[in-house]
Amino acid sequence: MSKKLLAEFVGTFWLVFGGCGSAVLAAGIENVGIGWLGVSLAFGLTVLTMAYAVGGISGGHFNPAVSLGLVVAGRFPAKDLIPYWLVQVIGAIAAAATLYVVVSGINGFEGVGGFASNGYGAASPLGYGMMSALVMEIVMTAAFLIIILGATSATVPAGFAPIAIGLGLTLIHLVSIPVTNTSVNPARSTGVALFADGPALTQLWLFWVAPLVGAVIGAVIWKILSTDD
Amino acid sequence: MSKKLLAEFVGTFWLVFGGCGSAVLAAGIENVGIGWLGVSLAFGLTVLTMAYAVGGISGGHFNPAVSLGLVVAGRFPAKDLIPYWLVQVIGAIAAAATLYVVVSGINGFEGVGGFASNGYGAASPLGYGMMSALVMEIVMTAAFLIIILGATSATVPAGFAPIAIGLGLTLIHLVSIPVTNTSVNPARSTGVALFADGPALTQLWLFWVAPLVGAVIGAVIWKILSTDD
Amino acid sequence: MSKKLLAEFVGTFWLVFGGCGSAVLAAGIENVGIGWLGVSLAFGLTVLTMAYAVGGISGGHFNPAVSLGLVVAGRFPAKDLIPYWLVQVIGAIAAAATLYVVVSGINGFEGVGGFASNGYGAASPLGYGMMSALVMEIVMTAAFLIIILGATSATVPAGFAPIAIGLGLTLIHLVSIPVTNTSVNPARSTGVALFADGPALTQLWLFWVAPLVGAVIGAVIWKILSTDD
Amino acid sequence: MSKKLLAEFVGTFWLVFGGCGSAVLAAGIENVGIGWLGVSLAFGLTVLTMAYAVGGISGGHFNPAVSLGLVVAGRFPAKDLIPYWLVQVIGAIAAAATLYVVVSGINGFEGVGGFASNGYGAASPLGYGMMSALVMEIVMTAAFLIIILGATSATVPAGFAPIAIGLGLTLIHLVSIPVTNTSVNPARSTGVALFADGPALTQLWLFWVAPLVGAVIGAVIWKILSTDD
Repeated sequence: MSKKLLAEFVGTFWLVFGGCGSAVLAAGIENVGIGWLGVSLAFGLTVLTMAYAVGGISGGHFNPAVSLGLVVAGRFPAKDLIPYWLVQVIGAIAAAATLYVVVSGINGFEGVGGFASNGYGAASPLGYGMMSALVMEIVMTAAFLIIILGATSATVPAGFAPIAIGLGLTLIHLVSIPVTNTSVNPARSTGVALFADGPALTQLWLFWVAPLVGAVIGAVIWKILSTDD
Repeated sequence: MSKKLLAEFVGTFWLVFGGCGSAVLAAGIENVGIGWLGVSLAFGLTVLTMAYAVGGISGGHFNPAVSLGLVVAGRFPAKDLIPYWLVQVIGAIAAAATLYVVVSGINGFEGVGGFASNGYGAASPLGYGMMSALVMEIVMTAAFLIIILGATSATVPAGFAPIAIGLGLTLIHLVSIPVTNTSVNPARSTGVALFADGPALTQLWLFWVAPLVGAVIGAVIWKILSTDD
Repeated sequence: MSKKLLAEFVGTFWLVFGGCGSAVLAAGIENVGIGWLGVSLAFGLTVLTMAYAVGGISGGHFNPAVSLGLVVAGRFPAKDLIPYWLVQVIGAIAAAATLYVVVSGINGFEGVGGFASNGYGAASPLGYGMMSALVMEIVMTAAFLIIILGATSATVPAGFAPIAIGLGLTLIHLVSIPVTNTSVNPARSTGVALFADGPALTQLWLFWVAPLVGAVIGAVIWKILSTDD
Repeated sequence: MSKKLLAEFVGTFWLVFGGCGSAVLAAGIENVGIGWLGVSLAFGLTVLTMAYAVGGISGGHFNPAVSLGLVVAGRFPAKDLIPYWLVQVIGAIAAAATLYVVVSGINGFEGVGGFASNGYGAASPLGYGMMSALVMEIVMTAAFLIIILGATSATVPAGFAPIAIGLGLTLIHLVSIPVTNTSVNPARSTGVALFADGPALTQLWLFWVAPLVGAVIGAVIWKILSTDD
C-alpha cells in the first residue's frame, strides 16, 4: 500500500506543480505567454506523463473525485478511498508550497495573487456565477469519469488510456477555465487555495462538492453504458 | 440498440458542449484566450476522448454525415441510420441547451451572439461566400470520411484510430473555421443554431447538404482505394 | 499501381490543401488566428491522418523528397519514383487550385498574395538569405528522412510511425517557417507557386534542390546508423 | 559503440537545433510567432521524433542528466557515461554552430542575443533568482527521470515511451521557461552558451549541477517506487 500512496503523492504533486505552475508562471505574459491553451495542455500532460510513469503502481488517480468515481464503478476498493484522498491532498499542498518558493523568487515579488485557485462569481476568471460553476464542474467531471472508465475498459487496446485521459483533461480545461479556472479535482483546488489571495478558501466547498457529484454521475452513466443487456 | 443510442447521445453531447463550448467561452479573450487553435484542438479532443470511451459500444460516430458515409462504405447497417441521426441531433440540442445555461450565468449577460453557429456570407467568420462554404465543407467532410474509413481498416493496428480521427477533426477546424466556422457535422450545426442570434437557422440547410454530400464522396473514394484489383 | 498513385494523389492533395490552406485562411487573423503554431500543427496532421488512412496502400510519401530518400535507403523501387513524383505534383496543383476557389470567395477579394509559397531573401517571411534557406531546408529534410526511416524500421512497434512522422513535420515547421515558410517538399512548393504573387516560381529551384539533397543525406546517415557492424 | 555515439550525436543535434532554433527564429514574432507554447512543443517533439527514430540504437538519451539518472537506476552501464556525455555535448555545439549560420543570414543581422541560452537573475526570462532556478531545474529534472524510467518500465506496453517522454519535456518547458528558459539538459545549455551574448557561460555551472542533482533524485525516487516489497 505504501508504494501506491507514494505514487499518488508524486502524481498529484506533479499535477499541481505542473498545471498550476504553468498558469501562475507562464500564462499571461505578453506576446510569448502560453495562455489558457498552454495551461490546458500542461494540466493534461501532467496526467498523461504520470499515468504512464506510475499508473501501473497506484492506478494513477491523482484526484479524489476520480478515486470516488472508481469506487462507484466497482474498480477501486472503498476501504482505500480515505488514504488515497489524504495523500492526494498532501501531495497537492506540497506542490503548492514548492511553487510558492519558486514564484516568490522573482525580482520585485509582490504576492502570488489568485495563484491559479478556483472560484466563481467575482473570483471566476470572467465573472460566471455559482450556478454556471456548479453545472460546468459537474458536467466536466462526469465526462472525465466516462472517459477514464471507458478508456481503461477491456475493449480498448492496452496503452492508450493515458493519452485519452490526459488529453481529456486538456479538453476540460479548454472549455472551463473561463468559468471556474477548472477544478474537477478537489485536491488541486485545496492545495493552491491555502496560498492564494482572495476567496479561494471560502469557495473551496464547491470544488469538493461539484467534482464529487459529477464523478458519481459519470460512474453511474458508465455502468449503464457498459452493463450487458 | 439502446446502449448504442445512449453512447451516441453522450458522444455528440460532448462534441457540442466541448467544441462549441470552448469557442463560445474561451476563444476570443484578450491575451490568454485559446483562439481558433484552441477551438480546433477542443473539437478534435471531444472525438478522440469519446471514441476511446464509448467507440466500442456504438462505433463512435457522433455525426450524421459520418453515419451516412459508413452506410455507403458498407460498414454500418442502413436500417440504423435514422435512429442514430435522431439521437445525435437530440444530444447536440441537449448540449447547446446546457451550454446556454452556463453562458447566461456570466455577470452582465447580454445574449449568446453567434453561439458558435455555422454560416456563410455575412455569417461567415471572415465573410466567405456560399460557394466557398460549399466547396470547403464538401472537401473537408470527404477527407474526414477517408481518414475514418482508412484508420479503422484492418491494415492499421488496433487502438490508433481515435488519434487519427480526432486529430483529423482538429486539422479540419484549423483550415475551415475562417470560412464556415466549421461544421462537417449536421447535428453540431443544428444544436447551436436553435439558440444562436443571426441567420443560423435559415442557413442550416447548407450544413446538412454539404457534409452529407462530402461524406458520400469520401466513402466512394475510399471504396475505390480499398477494393482489390 | 493505380491504387497507389490515387493514394499519393489524395494524400498530397490533403497535405497542400490542409497545410497551405490553414496558412492562407487562418494564420494571421488578429486575436483568434492560429499563427505559425497552428500552421505547423496543420501540416503535421495532414501527414499523420493520411499516413493512417492510406499509408498502407501507397506507403504514404506525399512528397518527392521522401520518395527519393526511400529509394536511396533501399525501401522503395527506383522504377516507381517518376510516377510517384508526377502524381504528387499533380495532387499538389489540384489542391492549390481548389484552395484558390475557396480563397477567392471572400467578400472584397483582392488576390491571394504569397499563397503560402516558399521563398528566400525578400520572399522569406523574415528576410533570411539564400544560404540560410539552403542550410535550413537541407538539415530539415535530412532529419525528416531519419525520422521516417527510423520510425518505420522493424525495431519500432507497428502503428506509431504516423505519429512520429506527422509530429516531426510539425516540428520542422515550428523551426523553419520564419526562414523559408518551410518546404521540405518540392510538390507542396510547386503547387502553390503556380498561383502565388511574387517570385515563387523563379525561386522554386531551391525548393527542389535542397529537399532532394537533404533527403539523400538523411537516407545515407540512416544507412550508416542501421547497418550491422 | 560507435553507432550508439552517432545516434546520440544526431539526437542531441536535433534537440538543440529544433528546440533552441524554434525559440531563436520563431518565438517572439508579432501576431504569428509561436511563443513559449510553440517552443515547448518543439523541444518535446525533438525527443519524441528522435526517440522513435534512433532510440532503438542508443537508448535515446540526448541529455547528460538522463544518462546519469539511468546509471543510478541501473539501466545504463557507468563505463559508457563519459563517451555519451562527450558526444552529447559535441552534438549540441554542432547544432548551435549550424543554427548560428542560419540566424546570421537574416537581412540586417545584429547579433544572436540570448540565443536561447539558460540563465537566472537578470538572465532569467522574467527575472527569477538563483534559488528559484535551482528548485525549478531540480524538480523538473527529477520528474523527467521518473517519467522516463516509468514509461520505459515493463508494465507499459511497448511503443508509448517516446510519447510520454517527449510530451513530458513539452510540459517541463510550459512550466519553467519563464524561470530559467528551461535546461534540464546540460548539453543543450552548453551548446548555445558558447555563442550567446550575456552571462550564459558564467551561469553554466547551475545548468550542469541542478539537472544532474535532479536526475539522481528522480532515479532514487523511481527505485523506491519500483522495488518489490
